[in-house]
Amino acid sequence: MNYRPLFFITGLVLSKMAVFMYFPMILAFYYHSFGGMEFLASIIITHLASIIFLYLGGETNRSHLGVKEMFMLTTGVWILASLFAALPFVFIEHISYSDAFFETMSGITTTGSTVLHGLDTMHPSILLWRSILQWLGGVGFIVMGVAILPFLNVGGMRLFQTESSDWSDKSASKTRRVALDILLVYVSLTVCCFIGYRFAGMENFDAVNHAMTTISTGGYSTSDNSMGHFSKLAHWNAVIFMFLGGLPFLLLIRSMQQKSFGPLWRDAQIQGFAKLVICCSLSLTLYLVFTDQFSWSDAIRLSVFNVVSVITTTGFGLDDFITWGDFSVLIFSGLLFTGACSGSTAGGIKIFRFQIAFSLLKRQLMLLMHPHALFPQKYNNRKVSDEILRSLVAFVIAYMTTIAVSTLLLTLFGAHSMVALSASITAVSNVGPGLVESIGPSGNFAALPAPSKWVLSIGMLMGRLEILTVAVMLTRHFWRR
Amino acid sequence: MNYRPLFFITGLVLSKMAVFMYFPMILAFYYHSFGGMEFLASIIITHLASIIFLYLGGETNRSHLGVKEMFMLTTGVWILASLFAALPFVFIEHISYSDAFFETMSGITTTGSTVLHGLDTMHPSILLWRSILQWLGGVGFIVMGVAILPFLNVGGMRLFQTESSDWSDKSASKTRRVALDILLVYVSLTVCCFIGYRFAGMENFDAVNHAMTTISTGGYSTSDNSMGHFSKLAHWNAVIFMFLGGLPFLLLIRSMQQKSFGPLWRDAQIQGFAKLVICCSLSLTLYLVFTDQFSWSDAIRLSVFNVVSVITTTGFGLDDFITWGDFSVLIFSGLLFTGACSGSTAGGIKIFRFQIAFSLLKRQLMLLMHPHALFPQKYNNRKVSDEILRSLVAFVIAYMTTIAVSTLLLTLFGAHSMVALSASITAVSNVGPGLVESIGPSGNFAALPAPSKWVLSIGMLMGRLEILTVAVMLTRHFWRR
Ligand SMILES: [K+]
Ligand SMILES: [K+]
Repeated sequence: MNYRPLFFITGLVLSKMAVFMYFPMILAFYYHSFGGMEFLASIIITHLASIIFLYLGGETNRSHLGVKEMFMLTTGVWILASLFAALPFVFIEHISYSDAFFETMSGITTTGSTVLHGLDTMHPSILLWRSILQWLGGVGFIVMGVAILPFLNVGGMRLFQTESSDWSDKSASKTRRVALDILLVYVSLTVCCFIGYRFAGMENFDAVNHAMTTISTGGYSTSDNSMGHFSKLAHWNAVIFMFLGGLPFLLLIRSMQQKSFGPLWRDAQIQGFAKLVICCSLSLTLYLVFTDQFSWSDAIRLSVFNVVSVITTTGFGLDDFITWGDFSVLIFSGLLFTGACSGSTAGGIKIFRFQIAFSLLKRQLMLLMHPHALFPQKYNNRKVSDEILRSLVAFVIAYMTTIAVSTLLLTLFGAHSMVALSASITAVSNVGPGLVESIGPSGNFAALPAPSKWVLSIGMLMGRLEILTVAVMLTRHFWRR
Repeated sequence: MNYRPLFFITGLVLSKMAVFMYFPMILAFYYHSFGGMEFLASIIITHLASIIFLYLGGETNRSHLGVKEMFMLTTGVWILASLFAALPFVFIEHISYSDAFFETMSGITTTGSTVLHGLDTMHPSILLWRSILQWLGGVGFIVMGVAILPFLNVGGMRLFQTESSDWSDKSASKTRRVALDILLVYVSLTVCCFIGYRFAGMENFDAVNHAMTTISTGGYSTSDNSMGHFSKLAHWNAVIFMFLGGLPFLLLIRSMQQKSFGPLWRDAQIQGFAKLVICCSLSLTLYLVFTDQFSWSDAIRLSVFNVVSVITTTGFGLDDFITWGDFSVLIFSGLLFTGACSGSTAGGIKIFRFQIAFSLLKRQLMLLMHPHALFPQKYNNRKVSDEILRSLVAFVIAYMTTIAVSTLLLTLFGAHSMVALSASITAVSNVGPGLVESIGPSGNFAALPAPSKWVLSIGMLMGRLEILTVAVMLTRHFWRR
């Protein structure tokens, strides 16, 4: 195994990350609030580490990367970067390194589970750093999901490889151009979201933070009350931009280039996503109204907000939906797995996998009735080959296995089985809050023992990297010469 | 759709079933206990219905059955037969028809969930009838699983179609011979199990009943305390015959014909089944001992018994394992889905599907590292074709969907979400007791509202018929001309 590319890229990433540490530092110094010196220390350490990694990496020719190196790189960079991104939490919040790493991984994977209490009175510098982590993680994973994962053929993502013919030649310059396009759309959406929040009455600081954590479907907030702290208009603004964050960014780009909604309307995945949001919101609204829990207007707002928040794996809290009753708990349990569209900032299993699964079921039922007929399976007018199906099935098996193993470990470390299950699902799906009170929308992960936090951190990263990218490194064969 | 074959076969089945009603009737008259006249009434009604159905069926040529008729027949016969088999429960126990149908379906599908209280003081005739239902259901489903389902290619079962070359020509006489072989092995095992129970100190009546419900992996008992009412030797006898009931009967036959354990040892599915039993029993034993709940000998007995009872979907209770703690609840939650071997009396997803799933995962991980290598997927030295894989995946999707829909419906009918989920899983997997206290090993399904019982009855039948056999009838296309 050649570790030099890993060190080199990590060095590059750390040097970029240190630059983003300047923002909270400047904020702290400018407003004479706490954290300036601590961020300065983190920046110096990160820069030094960056130099060491670049030195260890030496001259690296990117085109010489083998498949194993690609996997190691994809996983390793995020872990190594998180090790340093965790420093400000240790220095400023005086929490253990395990807690700090959990908070960082939860941020950078846009999961949004937290171990910190008292957000409303927290130093602005650290709040900003949390939001920046999610914002960076969000765009980082879209670019990876578009530029790397389809080529590794992880979990049936080759379906999207030939989406645009531009992609088949893998040329570095074209990859760079698409990455820039994505960044441009991402920044534009963040700015629009910020303006929306300002218009809805948020302060500048809150609006900046929530804009970053909304579009990245991360879900970190500046208030323990999460979105409950803000106006109803802000809730609707969040709904719009969480939804946009759950769309495939390549299609958003095409739609903007063509100045038409066509590419969005016509996409099977987006259609499924929209239908699911509408169906779930509608049934929840009816349930909330007919069980006399809320007025129509509140019921609609709360339903739509929470459904979009969970499907897009944002995990913003607004009223504790666990208390709404068994029916809503079931709906949200299902949505925890769903995720939004592939190629977005959302985690989870993703809509297209469910669509392919149900079209397969339909095909097999037809085949039972007409054993000798031919029913080619298609998705978005493209044939679903046997290889894609196998790779997709392997993804789901690995997904469920990851959740099962994580649940078992958390239980052995002392958690109640339902807490363990809920925490594992929400981590692997990158949603954030669990469906059990202690770790729910109003709960917190601080009480879990340190080993559980490391397990969940790995789970979040696995979920974010489409499981198999990490799972492949857990096989013996991977480490054999 | 041609309904005449359905009526004809139902008529035949009802006439056979009426014969089995003679046993509890004779028992009641002989011991002057209650139920004789009620069974006589049931027999008369069933015989009359049988005649009517035979008349409606008229002359039927079996070879003219279309695929749709086969599906209708496979599902319809069990429903129509259960409608009449439920009569004794209404007449003798004076329960509602919904309850009686639930109890019957639970019996005949070898699920073993019950709505009846006070088994220890119940009329022997009705206890015997419950056991007979499970015994008949058990052998009926093995024969179906061997003779019909593989030809319908339901859920990847074509894997087993060519198991013995005898099967490829579908000739009716050979089918009949294999069916007779199965019946012979089934009866022999029942007799051996009976002798074992007698040897372990059971009374004749208890031994007969438990022999029938052990080998059929049904799990009905003659005591509210289930197996807890009997000796430790009886527990070990149950373990042996539950395990045997979970083996593929075709291989049992071959093993007996060849007078060698070879066919059993060499089978990948049996190996996986045995390994799973050993691993789970071992970890549970260690857990029970190290948490100071039981002595070593009790821990081993309770672990092995309950693991085998749940994996083989028998569902005999012995000590309430829900109270053993979170780790064991998790283990049993997993085992609820597993099921034993295909071609046995057990329900559930079945071991071979998990084995193929994990070998697929392994293959895909290898493929990620070596994108251009060829890794043919094999099972038991037979190639797992893409069609088998698709059909297997469709099965699992349909399985999970059935559980989800059933859970949602039960919740809407007022059940707590965990009760609804647990009841749905245990019904569709044909296990019997749930993992929630109210419906657990010491609980009872009587408190559920009538609509929930109908939903669960359908769930049990779907689980028993490998889901897709019934699901195909829920499509619009099936009913179109
Ligand atoms: K999130
Ligand atoms: K059972």
